[in-house]
Amino acid sequence: MNTKSPAFASWLGTTNDVTRTFLAASQMPDVINIAGGLPEASLYPVDELATIAAQVIRDNPAEALDYSPIEGLAVLRDALAARFSQSGLDLTRENVLIVSGGMQGLDLMGKAMLDPGDLVAAQAPAYLGALDAWKPRSPAYRCYFPDRSDFDAYSALTGAKFAYSVPNFSNPTGKLISTRVRQALVESAHDTGTWLLEDNPYGKLYYDADPLPDLLQLSAEFAPGPYAGPIVYLGTLSKEAVPGLRIGWVIANAEMIRTLTTVKQGTDMSCSSVSQLILAKAIETGLLERLQRPMIALYKQRRDALCQSMQEHLAGHFEWEIPVGGMFVWAVAKDSSLNTDHLLTEALQHGVCVSPSSAFDPLGEDKQALRINFTLNAPDKLEEGIKRLAKATESLLQMRKTG
Amino acid sequence: MNTKSPAFASWLGTTNDVTRTFLAASQMPDVINIAGGLPEASLYPVDELATIAAQVIRDNPAEALDYSPIEGLAVLRDALAARFSQSGLDLTRENVLIVSGGMQGLDLMGKAMLDPGDLVAAQAPAYLGALDAWKPRSPAYRCYFPDRSDFDAYSALTGAKFAYSVPNFSNPTGKLISTRVRQALVESAHDTGTWLLEDNPYGKLYYDADPLPDLLQLSAEFAPGPYAGPIVYLGTLSKEAVPGLRIGWVIANAEMIRTLTTVKQGTDMSCSSVSQLILAKAIETGLLERLQRPMIALYKQRRDALCQSMQEHLAGHFEWEIPVGGMFVWAVAKDSSLNTDHLLTEALQHGVCVSPSSAFDPLGEDKQALRINFTLNAPDKLEEGIKRLAKATESLLQMRKTG
Repeated sequence: MNTKSPAFASWLGTTNDVTRTFLAASQMPDVINIAGGLPEASLYPVDELATIAAQVIRDNPAEALDYSPIEGLAVLRDALAARFSQSGLDLTRENVLIVSGGMQGLDLMGKAMLDPGDLVAAQAPAYLGALDAWKPRSPAYRCYFPDRSDFDAYSALTGAKFAYSVPNFSNPTGKLISTRVRQALVESAHDTGTWLLEDNPYGKLYYDADPLPDLLQLSAEFAPGPYAGPIVYLGTLSKEAVPGLRIGWVIANAEMIRTLTTVKQGTDMSCSSVSQLILAKAIETGLLERLQRPMIALYKQRRDALCQSMQEHLAGHFEWEIPVGGMFVWAVAKDSSLNTDHLLTEALQHGVCVSPSSAFDPLGEDKQALRINFTLNAPDKLEEGIKRLAKATESLLQMRKTG
Repeated sequence: MNTKSPAFASWLGTTNDVTRTFLAASQMPDVINIAGGLPEASLYPVDELATIAAQVIRDNPAEALDYSPIEGLAVLRDALAARFSQSGLDLTRENVLIVSGGMQGLDLMGKAMLDPGDLVAAQAPAYLGALDAWKPRSPAYRCYFPDRSDFDAYSALTGAKFAYSVPNFSNPTGKLISTRVRQALVESAHDTGTWLLEDNPYGKLYYDADPLPDLLQLSAEFAPGPYAGPIVYLGTLSKEAVPGLRIGWVIANAEMIRTLTTVKQGTDMSCSSVSQLILAKAIETGLLERLQRPMIALYKQRRDALCQSMQEHLAGHFEWEIPVGGMFVWAVAKDSSLNTDHLLTEALQHGVCVSPSSAFDPLGEDKQALRINFTLNAPDKLEEGIKRLAKATESLLQMRKTG
């Protein structure tokens, strides 16, 4: 390194390495990874995708191998518009932008909306990837807590460029936002003009109940006709099927889609055409829908296994609600002085990787909870992971007593 | 649209729509597109890529369909490190980051280095995609002109966060930077510490001469051992093989790669694993190298055809140098009052799309030139495009006379 190299951009001084720690831990052979949000790879439809990949390249070589339009291939935008249209919600390709996973939707939204110091209203605790995505824009955060009884959606949204929400099985807490609060959020978005970013990676992962209405769907009831409301909906193939194709989608009114398209042009020009054609074919052939049932059955079983193991080994030190869907359990330490940043360090030494709550707090202050994933590992491994976590917790408490 | 929607980020007021105009024009059936920088699709190795795509998914399902590490798959990083290593230039996977096309490398570099008002030294005229990529960071520009006889590389680089350079067949001008000036740029980068961003999409497209040394290669001579210098090299599969997989690569010292990896984490998490495995296999089997000879033969023939047509129909109004490689001819109007922004409008009405020079000027002021592409169209279509452009020029000049 040249010692005279200029400084990196100032926001880089504020990054945390938690996601990289997860991903690195997932490659360590002896560490059980219950930190990340990864799918179970045995669910991937390998042969079908291999056949489709070869087929879309042979059948549409110019389209598959050339640049895609910035907005995405029309065939995929049309397929997604049809998939998300329903009674009262009228979508066309003008409402759809194809992105490289939900993460890119977050990045584009930050670039489109935020000047330094602009206000984001964030459901707290919040997905750390969203916080990472917006760091280069240097926003200010105001947290809102949609499950508190005195929650006021209008105050939460007023004055913000956009409000960030994960209504279905929030990352990290796994909680649902109630239909009543969803309605209040949507109504306030229409009233205030504030964009309401609905991040919905887990919307297909309901294990015990019927899905609650999406914010997008509720918003359409306010204004019939082609969708023109303030919801910016983010979906992804990563949690519904496979992450490795890097495909997600933004659904919003046509003006927002045009603006995000301008932003995407200067970001990466377009998404993989091959990936887009594979997804279009997976929708057309019904493959995507056929993946849901076995995925839900497997993940429900794993959620139950995890919660059973937690009940046996962790109930002395943590409390949690059993989530009705999604990928995570949110465990809060009963002893408010237990620091889960320190627990991560101890847990890694015991051979298990978890996610501490500080990573999900826009202000970095919450050190009392853990996010635990149940989708990646089989029940026996989940149990072993929880046993290790329990030992790490005991060990940390012991050290504090003697230290 | 809700009239109360908050304003978009301020940099969006400064965007131009030229790239979208190209891409839109490329879909109009009657318009000849000599504006873009698109490859000839008949060169794509369709059957080989279809076979490889199916094979990599079947052979490595978990790797192909899961998230890739942020930095990219080790097999591809190793293959690229080996491909670019040479006598004196010692690269390992720590020097390689996989990105979604060269465009993403530009975006990441802007995010990593630039706070508002920070200085970029830009070879002028400059690739408009780079200017677009950096707009959200609101940099200041200082232009440098490497082919002027009084060019001083040290002054050009001093005080800038990074200097942007396209040494091989600059986009838009198609010119080469001489070896002498390359050496001066590299030496100044080592002396000043300023990062030197070497964007090299066209480096394989030499038609008449042996390739000049890359800046990366010259930099390695200053400091033997694992690469630790100030060059940030950007390559892409888009111009060398196919754009539709969206794969590019950054080669730089390990600290810069680590920083860009942190930035990519919050941008799109990782690139398509399927695309990465396809490229790794295309390198391993020699497919990538086998594509070069027919591509160079075809593009050389088209360059000659374009320049012949220009000589016949445009020589009265424009002058140009015949480029020894790349994808573009840069035509400068003899009449300095001819406005090529206006000419684009007129050209579209005559059924041909070209790129005006204003799009490539960081200050937006140069209105005297055009960038003309010769790789996308066969000779007869190139000739028809130039005839239409000549008519549009005559028509514009006539309107001015009578207007």
